[in-house]
Amino acid sequence: MIIYVSRKEHFNAAHKLYNPSWTEEKNIEMFGPCANVNWHGHNFDLIVTVKGEPDPDTGFVIDLKKLSSLIRNNIVEKVDHKNLNLDVDFMHGKMASTEILAYEFWQILQPHIHKVSNGRAKLHSIKLYETPRNYVEYLGE
Amino acid sequence: MIIYVSRKEHFNAAHKLYNPSWTEEKNIEMFGPCANVNWHGHNFDLIVTVKGEPDPDTGFVIDLKKLSSLIRNNIVEKVDHKNLNLDVDFMHGKMASTEILAYEFWQILQPHIHKVSNGRAKLHSIKLYETPRNYVEYLGE
Amino acid sequence: MIIYVSRKEHFNAAHKLYNPSWTEEKNIEMFGPCANVNWHGHNFDLIVTVKGEPDPDTGFVIDLKKLSSLIRNNIVEKVDHKNLNLDVDFMHGKMASTEILAYEFWQILQPHIHKVSNGRAKLHSIKLYETPRNYVEYLGE
Amino acid sequence: MIIYVSRKEHFNAAHKLYNPSWTEEKNIEMFGPCANVNWHGHNFDLIVTVKGEPDPDTGFVIDLKKLSSLIRNNIVEKVDHKNLNLDVDFMHGKMASTEILAYEFWQILQPHIHKVSNGRAKLHSIKLYETPRNYVEYLGE
Amino acid sequence: MIIYVSRKEHFNAAHKLYNPSWTEEKNIEMFGPCANVNWHGHNFDLIVTVKGEPDPDTGFVIDLKKLSSLIRNNIVEKVDHKNLNLDVDFMHGKMASTEILAYEFWQILQPHIHKVSNGRAKLHSIKLYETPRNYVEYLGE
Amino acid sequence: MIIYVSRKEHFNAAHKLYNPSWTEEKNIEMFGPCANVNWHGHNFDLIVTVKGEPDPDTGFVIDLKKLSSLIRNNIVEKVDHKNLNLDVDFMHGKMASTEILAYEFWQILQPHIHKVSNGRAKLHSIKLYETPRNYVEYLGE
Repeated sequence: MIIYVSRKEHFNAAHKLYNPSWTEEKNIEMFGPCANVNWHGHNFDLIVTVKGEPDPDTGFVIDLKKLSSLIRNNIVEKVDHKNLNLDVDFMHGKMASTEILAYEFWQILQPHIHKVSNGRAKLHSIKLYETPRNYVEYLGE
Repeated sequence: MIIYVSRKEHFNAAHKLYNPSWTEEKNIEMFGPCANVNWHGHNFDLIVTVKGEPDPDTGFVIDLKKLSSLIRNNIVEKVDHKNLNLDVDFMHGKMASTEILAYEFWQILQPHIHKVSNGRAKLHSIKLYETPRNYVEYLGE
Repeated sequence: MIIYVSRKEHFNAAHKLYNPSWTEEKNIEMFGPCANVNWHGHNFDLIVTVKGEPDPDTGFVIDLKKLSSLIRNNIVEKVDHKNLNLDVDFMHGKMASTEILAYEFWQILQPHIHKVSNGRAKLHSIKLYETPRNYVEYLGE
Repeated sequence: MIIYVSRKEHFNAAHKLYNPSWTEEKNIEMFGPCANVNWHGHNFDLIVTVKGEPDPDTGFVIDLKKLSSLIRNNIVEKVDHKNLNLDVDFMHGKMASTEILAYEFWQILQPHIHKVSNGRAKLHSIKLYETPRNYVEYLGE
Repeated sequence: MIIYVSRKEHFNAAHKLYNPSWTEEKNIEMFGPCANVNWHGHNFDLIVTVKGEPDPDTGFVIDLKKLSSLIRNNIVEKVDHKNLNLDVDFMHGKMASTEILAYEFWQILQPHIHKVSNGRAKLHSIKLYETPRNYVEYLGE
Repeated sequence: MIIYVSRKEHFNAAHKLYNPSWTEEKNIEMFGPCANVNWHGHNFDLIVTVKGEPDPDTGFVIDLKKLSSLIRNNIVEKVDHKNLNLDVDFMHGKMASTEILAYEFWQILQPHIHKVSNGRAKLHSIKLYETPRNYVEYLGE
């Protein structure tokens, strides 16, 4: 009985899409208003999904309060009310796109899921909404 | 041409997370406020997804009015405005977690899908939202 | 320049609609499934609106982090993961309807708004969603 | 590093479910109010998901502005504020169900994704909401 | 203690914006795609708000199940899966805009609220969403 | 017959809450993470409501396509994908709070509503969501 369990968190951050090896003109051409030199920002929604077999004693695959704390301590604290290009260590030297963010969030969370779930769960998906109409998902492959 | 067809229903119920083989203290330690002896409750959203090939005469994999009736008659009527620990026969002796609920809903609905869809569809997923930020999914495996 | 400022919080609780001076039959007749003796529950959304003139030094009518803390400390802590009929002191002897809850929430919050906003704001509205389709509002009159 | 990237668009359209080879009575029997001879309509939400590896220079699997334009030019312009049975060339002679619409949208978009994404992405899913509670998904198989 | 109580219902309908005293060209000029001769449609959300003093015996201003039935029997049954220009008696000879619909819904519901609420409530507002981004409200004045 | 007509638009922007006449320490003390020197950002939702009597020839208080264009041309173009502190002329020298933004949006839109509605409508409300849980409203007084 494999159950997929999801928790949604959110954070607000500034960023821009900007390749420093390009000219200002090429950045504007490629990214349009997303390259605005003075930044723009979003309310991001982050959904983390793990999968595993429920513990018969608790009915839980993972304690969602622990999963929430894990996400808040390891991700939300580092990106909320921050500039994704300037303030976030694990994004240094990388494009601040939702694609790359989702991939990096996976790398951060994946090693913790086994322990936090007492060996029951493994990470299944990172889903990241930049706006209600634009979002990405990474499944670890 | 395999199409996945989904229908969302909802119900309001009370429950608590409580393992009767444990002391009150251990229940509070494990489940925190979710173990409140006097119960708490939720507006649950339930999404049932079936898959199959559309009937060329109707364009339907399944008549969504029939799928809705099936869910209402077999699940919503038994859990809406009920106590999931006390009032629901198929939950007796089980932990009233969303994980176990989703699994039990699958067991109830799965035998009906073939007939209600005239042999076209089979059950694909049970997705259950306890809150807009906590939800589970069961795919029958 | 009067601005209305709103903050949304949420809580999950059990309740029943039940008038103890009536027979079980009359309760069922009046309240239907909402009178289920073993309780049911909801994810409540609570929106608190204050109004006042922004402080020119901050641009704020009220600091929303302080308004959020005020609501969490004085209301959410007392009702979240609780039974509204049994566990909540300010509801003792009252019908646990959303109408009465909204009125009681006003009585609790109203004396604090002046101080928390440094004298700038007063309470304007308590809006309480029992479900996404059923909600009430109290404006203090 | 395969990332799934999604874009949501919407359109408003009229339709009816009606099989012209059947009598009026059989249509009403099969489709109920959905067969109303004078039509009814919906606000459709359409989510298109592509998958691929991000370009290291942009952080993008696909430029979402280009994906949005592709969907608007090839689908939304043809169905928005239209009658799906009468006004839409690619639906002539077909049942105007969400199942068939999703399948036809796939046929239209699939050939463009490779070019619009500079060879990075391929179409993964067409998800179509007829109402917030009824939706379908087609994965190309 | 005056409480505002709201109930949300929904319906799906076709319509067009078309003034029969104008030429086809003028209709297109004024209404654009909304004048499409073959109709278009929407998922309408309708929120009815009444106000009054709660009954101390029930905690209710109005029984929301009765308000829901009133709206369904008097409005939803007449407009759901219908053509607002052709099929709805109370819209004959009127423009099928959300403004006019909201006004007509008020005329229909207003005489019933007093009785359905046992003299406690009166109608306060009709709010009608044509899309999530376009909506109107009528307050009876 | 006075009808209130609303249109929702959205924009994404960076900002910080920062009073330049204060020290860095006092800004952090007052605004917490909202004062982050490297900015943060939001997906803002803006709802503009006008009121007036519908034109009997069109059923409209205001043509919502024209209201949408007015908001996009006069507000969204100036704030979308921008830094509210640095890039927006009408915010220079002002606190970039939602309260002040809503007030400034009113000043910009108010003079246009009479003309765009052919003399039928006047501006009633500016509602601005910074997040789904924090929002303000200005009614022009």
